[in-house]
Amino acid sequence: MSDVESMWRTLAPLGHTSSGYRRRPYDAAETEMRAWFVEEAQARGLVVEGDGLGNLVAWWGPDDAPAVLTGSHLDSVPDGGAFDGPLGVVSALGAVDLLRERGVAPVKRLGVSVFAEEEGSRFGIACLGSRLVTGSLTWERARELRDAEGRALPDVLAASGLDGVPMGLDGVEAFVELHVEQGRGLVDLDAPVGMAACIWPHGRWRFDFTGEPNHAGTTRMEDRADPMLTYAVTALSAAKQARLTGQRATFGRVAVEPNSTNGIPSRVTAWLDARCATDAELERLVAVISEQAAARAERDGTWVMVTAESVSPSVDFPADLAARLGPGLPVLPTQAGHDAGVLAAAGIPTAMMFVRNPTGVSHSPEEHAEMADCLAGVDALADALERLVAPGEGDDA
Amino acid sequence: MSDVESMWRTLAPLGHTSSGYRRRPYDAAETEMRAWFVEEAQARGLVVEGDGLGNLVAWWGPDDAPAVLTGSHLDSVPDGGAFDGPLGVVSALGAVDLLRERGVAPVKRLGVSVFAEEEGSRFGIACLGSRLVTGSLTWERARELRDAEGRALPDVLAASGLDGVPMGLDGVEAFVELHVEQGRGLVDLDAPVGMAACIWPHGRWRFDFTGEPNHAGTTRMEDRADPMLTYAVTALSAAKQARLTGQRATFGRVAVEPNSTNGIPSRVTAWLDARCATDAELERLVAVISEQAAARAERDGTWVMVTAESVSPSVDFPADLAARLGPGLPVLPTQAGHDAGVLAAAGIPTAMMFVRNPTGVSHSPEEHAEMADCLAGVDALADALERLVAPGEGDDA
Repeated sequence: MSDVESMWRTLAPLGHTSSGYRRRPYDAAETEMRAWFVEEAQARGLVVEGDGLGNLVAWWGPDDAPAVLTGSHLDSVPDGGAFDGPLGVVSALGAVDLLRERGVAPVKRLGVSVFAEEEGSRFGIACLGSRLVTGSLTWERARELRDAEGRALPDVLAASGLDGVPMGLDGVEAFVELHVEQGRGLVDLDAPVGMAACIWPHGRWRFDFTGEPNHAGTTRMEDRADPMLTYAVTALSAAKQARLTGQRATFGRVAVEPNSTNGIPSRVTAWLDARCATDAELERLVAVISEQAAARAERDGTWVMVTAESVSPSVDFPADLAARLGPGLPVLPTQAGHDAGVLAAAGIPTAMMFVRNPTGVSHSPEEHAEMADCLAGVDALADALERLVAPGEGDDA
Repeated sequence: MSDVESMWRTLAPLGHTSSGYRRRPYDAAETEMRAWFVEEAQARGLVVEGDGLGNLVAWWGPDDAPAVLTGSHLDSVPDGGAFDGPLGVVSALGAVDLLRERGVAPVKRLGVSVFAEEEGSRFGIACLGSRLVTGSLTWERARELRDAEGRALPDVLAASGLDGVPMGLDGVEAFVELHVEQGRGLVDLDAPVGMAACIWPHGRWRFDFTGEPNHAGTTRMEDRADPMLTYAVTALSAAKQARLTGQRATFGRVAVEPNSTNGIPSRVTAWLDARCATDAELERLVAVISEQAAARAERDGTWVMVTAESVSPSVDFPADLAARLGPGLPVLPTQAGHDAGVLAAAGIPTAMMFVRNPTGVSHSPEEHAEMADCLAGVDALADALERLVAPGEGDDA
């Protein structure tokens, strides 16, 4: 059994439930994942640095050299899959092992990184750790974030002994994130590994629908101001609009107040996840959905307020970097957000690699990668990192 | 200040929140309400009997005589109003005081009753206490019920020192429940107090919509099996169907799994509350809504399963009893379920009285009753009870 297989075996039970993985940031399973990472890194003699958000980097190579980061995240969406996040971390550790086996002597400092709360499943903002590190999210805003139980980020961090102060990325001159593919692009191309071309612009908008709570039995239908109906129309029109334009719009999260069977709700809060090929299309899509919601609210006698919670503009990964790090690999777009997108937007030369996912499904227990493809991913990542940290002749480092 | 006003003043802060009353069965506020009731009853020299469900009766009059019950409940829906439930209990205690002032010597035993979990807001079945007492719900089924936190009814009861064994209703020959009106019938008639004619048949059906969880960004709209869309169409078609037929259909409670912004849900569970003028119409309404849900599920590639959680057939309160207990009072139908409906269905001669609600709104903080109308309700209830427990000449007891 390779070290990579053995790492997968250790991770398999952590946060596993009958309905998928539950590795919510700062909860027991995800904390155990991070402890596992520290142990693996120290067993390799890497120097682990952590910050006040739970972000981790395990360093190899000369202290004072420019740095190259590679890694991903360890948290999952609720009922998620095994690979989204951990695949990039396990592969990075495997790539370090492989580079050492090859006798590579890095002239750059190589850091294996784990960014915290990538999925945004606890505090609502995806890539929380990398956004705070790069400054695209401020602490003034982050410290107000609350989880579903109403606990503020600073309190949750404090309970884990974390103070909220992010690490710096000074001296980092490249980032490479390897990730399980979240579609069937590589299946269709019959390729185990590919490179990312770009990330679609995407974001999250909170729709607050408010109406008049009343008795579900005694209130005539024509006397109601029921926000559930306004929400239902909005969810349908969002899906229709996205379908017509080849884009994505999803309402996957809903909170109803008071959520009582025999009461017309006072409020329905629903979160729109929308993604388009261009920034202008995304703006237009959300505007159309918001207008249709407002028009229906007027008919229903309800109100709707739309708040952008996070919006990530489109990211194009440098094509020359992708070509240099993964020569001959297919290049694909993705609609999923990643820490790689946040670091790229912050001006760090960034590349992403994908490993084939036979189901094409992700954010679900159906997400999968064959071990042979995982090992091909480690090889390809090691090749890419070797070009960055120990460039040979012909490598334009 | 009358005793009735003073009782209202004591109850006002219990379970009060900025968004309405939260008197969930067996939680602190509702437990305090029941302790208040025991205290009030004992201060009047009434003999309090409790059962293993938290149902309470405070007895006045000869031990071995046939019994007449009057009362209501003390629990509320989440974010409910002050009067739904407590009005019937406060008025019953006020009526005992008034009968004593009048020097009435009861020849029947009069019991002031409080039934537990009337709203069904914790374990999902309305009138839980009275259903178990009358046997229309079995303990075999009730002991499997769980609250939103997953706690089973027997465990919640045990935590309050209750063993689940219901009291008997042997020897009870009548029940009178006074309740705040949940509509504007008495407002339109300009009357402070009225009698109930009937309760519309009504029930709760759980709709489980299941689909295929996947990534909200990477999954093409045409590749999805999104149960949220099937639910949205079902909620809209239920409302439309009820509107067209003058009936009621409401989806006020929803649970989404995994309820993640960036994931297509695996499951949406939603509860339909439906009410019609006749049993046949109710059956037809739910059948039509279920068929439309199934048709849309087929289009969406999702599944829907419909489970009847509780169905209460129509109840006609005996017209002669209403006329005898409330001579001259207007008689109105109601679409709201009550313990009175459960006791009537169990064969106990039952009457209901309504007190005017100027807003017509209920299950909401907007629910209201003027103090003058509350006192008129106490008078009318005392008159009715006097006819039952101390019938004079011309009273056909």
